[in-house]
Amino acid sequence: MSDITTTDVLIIGAGPIGLFAVFELGLFDMRCHLIDILDRPGGQCAELYPEKPIYDIPGYPVIGAQELVDKLLEQIAPFKPGFTFNRMVTALERLEHGSFRVTTDENEVFDAKVVVIAAGGGSFQPKRPPIPGIEAYEQASVRYAVRRIEDFRDQEVVVVGGGDSALDWTLNLEPVARRVTLVHRRPEFRAAPDNVGKMHALRDAGAIDLVIGQVSGLSGEDGILRSVTVKGADAETEVACTRLLPFFGLTMKLGPVAEWGLHLHENQIPVDTEKFETSEPGIFAIGDINWYPGKLKLILSGFHEAALMTQAAKHIISPKERIVFQYTTSSTSLHKKLGVAD
Amino acid sequence: MSDITTTDVLIIGAGPIGLFAVFELGLFDMRCHLIDILDRPGGQCAELYPEKPIYDIPGYPVIGAQELVDKLLEQIAPFKPGFTFNRMVTALERLEHGSFRVTTDENEVFDAKVVVIAAGGGSFQPKRPPIPGIEAYEQASVRYAVRRIEDFRDQEVVVVGGGDSALDWTLNLEPVARRVTLVHRRPEFRAAPDNVGKMHALRDAGAIDLVIGQVSGLSGEDGILRSVTVKGADAETEVACTRLLPFFGLTMKLGPVAEWGLHLHENQIPVDTEKFETSEPGIFAIGDINWYPGKLKLILSGFHEAALMTQAAKHIISPKERIVFQYTTSSTSLHKKLGVAD
Repeated sequence: MSDITTTDVLIIGAGPIGLFAVFELGLFDMRCHLIDILDRPGGQCAELYPEKPIYDIPGYPVIGAQELVDKLLEQIAPFKPGFTFNRMVTALERLEHGSFRVTTDENEVFDAKVVVIAAGGGSFQPKRPPIPGIEAYEQASVRYAVRRIEDFRDQEVVVVGGGDSALDWTLNLEPVARRVTLVHRRPEFRAAPDNVGKMHALRDAGAIDLVIGQVSGLSGEDGILRSVTVKGADAETEVACTRLLPFFGLTMKLGPVAEWGLHLHENQIPVDTEKFETSEPGIFAIGDINWYPGKLKLILSGFHEAALMTQAAKHIISPKERIVFQYTTSSTSLHKKLGVAD
Repeated sequence: MSDITTTDVLIIGAGPIGLFAVFELGLFDMRCHLIDILDRPGGQCAELYPEKPIYDIPGYPVIGAQELVDKLLEQIAPFKPGFTFNRMVTALERLEHGSFRVTTDENEVFDAKVVVIAAGGGSFQPKRPPIPGIEAYEQASVRYAVRRIEDFRDQEVVVVGGGDSALDWTLNLEPVARRVTLVHRRPEFRAAPDNVGKMHALRDAGAIDLVIGQVSGLSGEDGILRSVTVKGADAETEVACTRLLPFFGLTMKLGPVAEWGLHLHENQIPVDTEKFETSEPGIFAIGDINWYPGKLKLILSGFHEAALMTQAAKHIISPKERIVFQYTTSSTSLHKKLGVAD
């Protein structure tokens, strides 16, 4: 087992609500660590619609989704939260002395007195491409993300897709793999033009292969791939393949949250409206993932939920402390925490 | 009785929460009219700390209180709310067909299907100066605000105070009154320097009087003032006075809200957390004035309350309409309402 990271509050999900929770918890001196399945903060705002304008953030007649994420990161910077990206929380268990142990799919371990689930619509998970029999190869040969480049050394790698992930990994695995073949259904790519240019240069130099078509079949045995069949406009090609990397986009699934023993209401987690606590004391749920009468999946509601949750979290973490509620406009002690001069 | 103004939703209080309610209600096609006792929108933000920075508005690492008000006014502009300033709502009654009639202290009448109380800490009311027997003159001669300049024509006006209101009215009433005397306890003034300069010029020209000292007594009969006694450092002066305008600042009182038959909890109005409705169906309370378990008097909580209240208000105003919840990021129909091009 790896080293254990301890923190006051472990926040699952680094979307706008998870980020703002750091601010509210920070005002009350609670340290936070956030885990997110994406490779950067922002959740749906950053992944699904970074350039789209939002019109209902109070006080912003209009703000871009990524801009909102950037503003929130700036707002929480004084509290120096920890971040672990590219990880799914797979296990959440209560320890004997009342705190919680959280484990990721890469076996990192976190201990925290309070857990806040701010997981939005759930985990972003890669879409499985419609290739017959692909499940059988998912343990060994089919990967939906690159966690360790070494797993691809001297392998016959087939990357499928036309977006940034596909192009990025084509370029990055080329020096490591025995051979990289990029497969895309059409000659045009959605990825950044600069990377498309680099890919074409590698192909022209004979360093990689580019095949236009769709993967229609897999060959191999005992879960180990040997080759894939690519069906083009007028021919089928057999391509050697021991690692298949299909990038077919992301879909949102509730994921392992469903297995943590929490009560669920149509894939949302019921909470009270005083503390936003789940059926398990010490585990809170805020933002789109929770449910209560009147619930609206609005970012501005998650902000409110984070503020009220914070009061309850403080009672758990500092049970003997008298909580004094102060305003950021007037409190010298809050100004000190925020690093602003009086 | 004056003409009756009809609107969908009558909002009592034009502070940040009352303003943001216009936005949420506007997204669902409800027209709003706001009444506030102050002379401009913004509530406490505009009146108590317009230049102070706020640090806990989500997405704003820092924003000035007046700046927040200005941003909210910009955000709600597409919905063209009506405003009535300088008025206290004195009566709120239910009409026979279920809507509400709201009356101000100047007898303006508003009919609305839904009433939203967003009155913050209550009404800002002028502080009564510590002058013995002043109550007896409050009907006729003592005024805490200037509602109609004509009431001061040819009167012996004594203005008391050193701030902007005192200086403003000294300057504005000088051409109208028989005589204006400004009384302040010390020679320095807190008011805008430009106005202080103008006042000194009028005094030097003999157009007004300036007396340094404190009003210590009142003379008159049957509630009609004749003169006031001003106690200076080493002498008492008798100043002719038929209109006394003391500007001793504002204090916050719950005010007439207490008389509308709503349940109260320590001067706050209990509401549910699904609709933020009071004990009277169709009357909602949002922002600092409401109470529920976990309540925090935070601006960000009021924003959430406004959003959930809106759903319930829509059911009252359009009972047969199926409510479709849409996001401002993606809905073409909301973009149209907001006046932004797709």
